[in-house]
Amino acid sequence: MRTVAGLLFPGFELLDLFGPLEMLGTAEQEFSLELIAQTAGPVASAQQVSAMAQRSFDEAGDYDILLIPGGMGTRQEVNNTALLDWLVKASSRTEWTLSVCTGSALLARAGLLDGRRATTNKAAFAWASSQGPDVQWVREARWVEDGRFMTSSGVSAGMDMALAAIARMLGEAQAEQVAIRAEYTWQRDSTHDPFARIHGLV
Amino acid sequence: MRTVAGLLFPGFELLDLFGPLEMLGTAEQEFSLELIAQTAGPVASAQQVSAMAQRSFDEAGDYDILLIPGGMGTRQEVNNTALLDWLVKASSRTEWTLSVCTGSALLARAGLLDGRRATTNKAAFAWASSQGPDVQWVREARWVEDGRFMTSSGVSAGMDMALAAIARMLGEAQAEQVAIRAEYTWQRDSTHDPFARIHGLV
Repeated sequence: MRTVAGLLFPGFELLDLFGPLEMLGTAEQEFSLELIAQTAGPVASAQQVSAMAQRSFDEAGDYDILLIPGGMGTRQEVNNTALLDWLVKASSRTEWTLSVCTGSALLARAGLLDGRRATTNKAAFAWASSQGPDVQWVREARWVEDGRFMTSSGVSAGMDMALAAIARMLGEAQAEQVAIRAEYTWQRDSTHDPFARIHGLV
Repeated sequence: MRTVAGLLFPGFELLDLFGPLEMLGTAEQEFSLELIAQTAGPVASAQQVSAMAQRSFDEAGDYDILLIPGGMGTRQEVNNTALLDWLVKASSRTEWTLSVCTGSALLARAGLLDGRRATTNKAAFAWASSQGPDVQWVREARWVEDGRFMTSSGVSAGMDMALAAIARMLGEAQAEQVAIRAEYTWQRDSTHDPFARIHGLV
């Protein structure tokens, strides 16, 4: 049983977090899920409704998988040293560190992506990429894998990345079963990114 | 500004709820979102992590849009008269009542779908359809619209249905912008349902 920590902060993007957690949580014999925040308790999303953080950074254990969402709240959190410090500490022990959307801006500010290939939200590409001048930002990608880091493009791309991560851990057949259970048409091609063109990045 | 109530109950399916709320919440000048449950406070999903209900059924107001998720918890909630009574009351005042996955089993048990066309999760079709013998269950559909009710197929189908509902309320162009912002490839064809075949329903 692998452990998964989903990060909450004020203004996190709902689907960035709960799309991938749906996929991981559906393979429920395989993954145990927790939500973590700077302080335990309810945390409001960018879409107003709130999720419950079960543990604070101080109470959090070690996790096999970290899931870092984006959202408008990242504009504040890139300056939150408590959060960046926790990312560095928690990420040092993971099998996989996953980010969705502008979640990669947080990993970049924590220095975790320096020298690595990564991607981010295509509408917020200029801002997010400015948070990590030593990152090799990929302009056209649904998601990018480099070492134990996977970073995805905006919002719904996190689900395709999560399925790819499940495939790397449990095999392609199991990931396919998770996608079918969610009645989700899995985009398996990490280079397929029509939104890069829509946003003028290629 | 339209008001949206998302229903929580123990064992709700994460993406059933938060996929559509992502789409509605992204058009944030247009929709105000709340989470409702029998009792206010944290409610655990089928995927273990919890969301916060802001109001109980007794405290809930009138809403323009109801969003009813499915999930394993529906197996219990079809026998919860407090929940079924609230569905009948709240749904009498909506512009749209939306369900995802086995959420339509709850609407069916409340009698709200009698004589109407509706669909549900394709893996749980036999159980869900048995909850409403007077419903015209559609075996092959991504989602079905009948009057002010839209019912979707399993889990990820809720996002396509939510975009269709946004299109009906705000126009196709606005729905398309919401999909692009979420980097989501919107399935606009409500009859496109490869999962009906996978589950032997057609």
